[in-house]
Amino acid sequence: MSPAVATNGFPITRREEFPSVLPSAGYSELQSYRLNHSPPLPSILKNSFKVVDGPPTSAAANPNEIANLFPNLYGQPSVSLVPGHSEVKGQSLKIGVVLSGGQAPGGHNVIAGIFDYLQERAKGSILYGFKGGPAGIMKCKYARLTTELIYLYRNQGGFHMICSGRDKIETPEQFKQAEETVKKLDLDGLVVIGGDDSNTNACLLAENFRSKNMKTQVIGCPKTIDGDLKCKEVPISFGFDTACKIYSETIGNVMTDARSTGKYYHFIRLMGRAASHITLECALQTHPNIALIGEEVAAKKLTMKNVTNYITDIICKRMELGFNYGVILLPEGLIDFIPEVKQLIAELNEILAHGIIDKAGMWKRKLRSQSQELFEFLPQAIQEQLLLERDPHGNVQVAKIETEKMLIEMVEAELDQRKQNGAYKGKFQAQPHFFGYEGRCGFPTNFDANYCYALGYATGALLRSGKTGLISSVGNLIAPVDEWTVGGTALTSLMDVERRHGKFKPVIKKAMVDLEGAPFMKFASLRDDWTLKNRYISPGPIQFVGPFANKINYTLTLELGA
Amino acid sequence: MSPAVATNGFPITRREEFPSVLPSAGYSELQSYRLNHSPPLPSILKNSFKVVDGPPTSAAANPNEIANLFPNLYGQPSVSLVPGHSEVKGQSLKIGVVLSGGQAPGGHNVIAGIFDYLQERAKGSILYGFKGGPAGIMKCKYARLTTELIYLYRNQGGFHMICSGRDKIETPEQFKQAEETVKKLDLDGLVVIGGDDSNTNACLLAENFRSKNMKTQVIGCPKTIDGDLKCKEVPISFGFDTACKIYSETIGNVMTDARSTGKYYHFIRLMGRAASHITLECALQTHPNIALIGEEVAAKKLTMKNVTNYITDIICKRMELGFNYGVILLPEGLIDFIPEVKQLIAELNEILAHGIIDKAGMWKRKLRSQSQELFEFLPQAIQEQLLLERDPHGNVQVAKIETEKMLIEMVEAELDQRKQNGAYKGKFQAQPHFFGYEGRCGFPTNFDANYCYALGYATGALLRSGKTGLISSVGNLIAPVDEWTVGGTALTSLMDVERRHGKFKPVIKKAMVDLEGAPFMKFASLRDDWTLKNRYISPGPIQFVGPFANKINYTLTLELGA
Repeated sequence: MSPAVATNGFPITRREEFPSVLPSAGYSELQSYRLNHSPPLPSILKNSFKVVDGPPTSAAANPNEIANLFPNLYGQPSVSLVPGHSEVKGQSLKIGVVLSGGQAPGGHNVIAGIFDYLQERAKGSILYGFKGGPAGIMKCKYARLTTELIYLYRNQGGFHMICSGRDKIETPEQFKQAEETVKKLDLDGLVVIGGDDSNTNACLLAENFRSKNMKTQVIGCPKTIDGDLKCKEVPISFGFDTACKIYSETIGNVMTDARSTGKYYHFIRLMGRAASHITLECALQTHPNIALIGEEVAAKKLTMKNVTNYITDIICKRMELGFNYGVILLPEGLIDFIPEVKQLIAELNEILAHGIIDKAGMWKRKLRSQSQELFEFLPQAIQEQLLLERDPHGNVQVAKIETEKMLIEMVEAELDQRKQNGAYKGKFQAQPHFFGYEGRCGFPTNFDANYCYALGYATGALLRSGKTGLISSVGNLIAPVDEWTVGGTALTSLMDVERRHGKFKPVIKKAMVDLEGAPFMKFASLRDDWTLKNRYISPGPIQFVGPFANKINYTLTLELGA
Repeated sequence: MSPAVATNGFPITRREEFPSVLPSAGYSELQSYRLNHSPPLPSILKNSFKVVDGPPTSAAANPNEIANLFPNLYGQPSVSLVPGHSEVKGQSLKIGVVLSGGQAPGGHNVIAGIFDYLQERAKGSILYGFKGGPAGIMKCKYARLTTELIYLYRNQGGFHMICSGRDKIETPEQFKQAEETVKKLDLDGLVVIGGDDSNTNACLLAENFRSKNMKTQVIGCPKTIDGDLKCKEVPISFGFDTACKIYSETIGNVMTDARSTGKYYHFIRLMGRAASHITLECALQTHPNIALIGEEVAAKKLTMKNVTNYITDIICKRMELGFNYGVILLPEGLIDFIPEVKQLIAELNEILAHGIIDKAGMWKRKLRSQSQELFEFLPQAIQEQLLLERDPHGNVQVAKIETEKMLIEMVEAELDQRKQNGAYKGKFQAQPHFFGYEGRCGFPTNFDANYCYALGYATGALLRSGKTGLISSVGNLIAPVDEWTVGGTALTSLMDVERRHGKFKPVIKKAMVDLEGAPFMKFASLRDDWTLKNRYISPGPIQFVGPFANKINYTLTLELGA
């Protein structure tokens, strides 16, 4: 038998080729082992393929405004890869890649996928990695990515190969800087790996380069653990699968602890500011007693008092059943979904910008009566946080509010009141948790590792076929990898506009939790049972080998109709 | 080929036997899969063996006092299992088992090990599980453990099969209640699964039963994730391996995040109040920039200011190297190790018991000057916590102090001062973490699953041979399971006395981190390199199959001289 060879042509014993690099780089056994995982490619990418155009596209909404904003790109077709021989010549390419925004497990594999495509199908190509996010493009800070370097990051978590950043390319000067960089490096293509904002930015860059007859094409890749960048053609953003599994492992452990100890309510805040997909997925994986979904809170126009009472009612009912413990999940962005909180914060920003906060509390008279009531209802620590913590623009920093602690205090106050009325007799002890950073940089699951590798490889194919302004799209994801479909979706077709400062601004609308969608419906059909009975499920640590190593998250499975 | 059969004689497809139980019990795929892991037994337990006595034993210290406290047990030999035929008759036994104190992964496997021993070697035996810890013994609350019930908890985390509790059997009335229970159930034996206190309690029960010529024998099992119950014969307590690996997975993820983002210092507090074994082990697994070991802090008599400066100096040096991020580990019990903090708290307890805290701060004059200085040095939030949070005895609740946040505030203040002096120019942003409950109830690693099963099986053998007052001891743990040694150690041989309220009280001394021991020496030899270079290692999630599924923690490996 000949030695095992990965789909990308490297022998899978590659580790031995770099013995001197590994010790100082500091790899655990599992990290080293994962270096040699060779993600399988969809069969379409393993053989000869060609890129075929679909019909012309429109926009997600407001097509006229999008057409005005993207005169060169608007209407261009999305594309699919189909078996066949492409007419593209075998020329080599110069490509740049950038990671934009927060980390998501799998980013390194996107880069590896691009790299391997270039090695295998466009020999002599060069791949540059821009350092520290879009700022690296603007400042022309980059590294040339080599076989040896790429190898050290295969199937590894984090973005530390080239790091990321949150800068945006927005002003005319910044666009100019980007132009200079891509000209200097003579780039045929630029790959932007990022979320909704970054992909919008990618489309603006594509439009800009095209409008100036520059050769540089721009392709986006869907990244965000929050899971709020998705559509029909892009069924999921990478990182969501891994992050939810890491959080669910930990939630499952806490559930087992809660059940064993029998005396704590665990309030667990999970990442996910704009949308509650993570909380929903973790609920489906673990069956908590309560999971608050921001989109539902907003749709029902719940108040803080409603939410507090909802939780408190369940705690009281559970006490009667003898359960003095429980597990409650909430999304990081919960309070952003509560209309009255938004209103209060807007009023506070106004007051703090123009007035002073007197100790006697006279300033509170400037609040509308509903806002004043809410303010008084909030725990003192939160009141102080609202008044003290400001961002550089003088705004209240909602992100800094520890929602899980706030809810604990409010539930505690409510329970104290009910105790006085004789309606509650238990002893309430709560533990706050925030699961955030732990999930963004874990080892990508096999799903994320394989999905990202396919996204990257597809990106290479899209660039080579001369396309620009597309987002790499890999579909049919609940089938075996072999059957995954591959293509590119016109970014303009995902766009809508928002009016800001009197101007139209293009945006890819965030995909919120759909209250009519299969994942939420599934949750809604089960949650009453979870509330009073303890249906906890402990998914355990992510496995890379063995019978469950390739299981896909519930959200994707349900959305794809399985 | 005949169907695969586990060492305990059950076919390993047992899952199929209980199809109706699983869905409502709520098992993830991995949970179900782990049900069928059949822990291998040491070869000594697989074949015929007999229990042989060693030489008479003494005590860890103060043998005369121990002899006085345990007149019936003192001096009895520890025992080993050796191949051979035992002379024990094949009679059936009635055994009770109790889980005592905080959860530790593997507890269910100890019970399964006892159960399987009884099934296989003492047919017709009965195993009772006392519910909710020692209170279950006193109140005679128990469940009879059956094949079907035990099956549902094999290799599962948590203590929820029978739950645990923190009560102690201390007063003459409580001992009387225990006597009544074991008489009522006609128990031949009682197994106490717990930490140092619980095993001391087990020995007192054994002495008490023996002194009254009762037949009930008592055997202890070493449980605690903190790793501070160990000695030559008991090289490790169960749960430590799993908990450290769970924490290290998470620390590794945070490290990758820190390195990718490049802007946060993560201060991670880890469980471990009395001893810092967990922090030390996690440091060896992950290579943080700083790990504070309580025992070293105490040995060097460091002050809060010393600790603050130590951290701040490193942050400043790292800034000069361009690293504006880092990862710092600290044990939950850190401040208990700082002599001046202990002194301050003692004085505060005294003042608060007898005086009032006036707003003007006149009360502070009652503090010694060093304590007053320290109090003023502490962040305001901590000052408030020290004055407000009391336990039922009116004492300051040191356990509630969020040490990681306290350190962040103190380092921040010190950096601000250095900024004013021009000695620091960076921007310090910190993220606090506490990894606690997440680690106590995870799925036991293969090591903990196998170790616990052997401990339980051995406990059955010790009971059947008529022994009492021993702690189940499984050794040679870095060899393959087949070669593990099995025996029982006289609990009195581990005892010392403490003088409390004018009386001698027996105690098993907690095993602290030995500053001359191999694990600390290894850490000390490496840490300078970790401080300024970034040698982060990410161990990743615990694997149950594959090449690294049986790796043992560093502490045990180094202590056993490998």
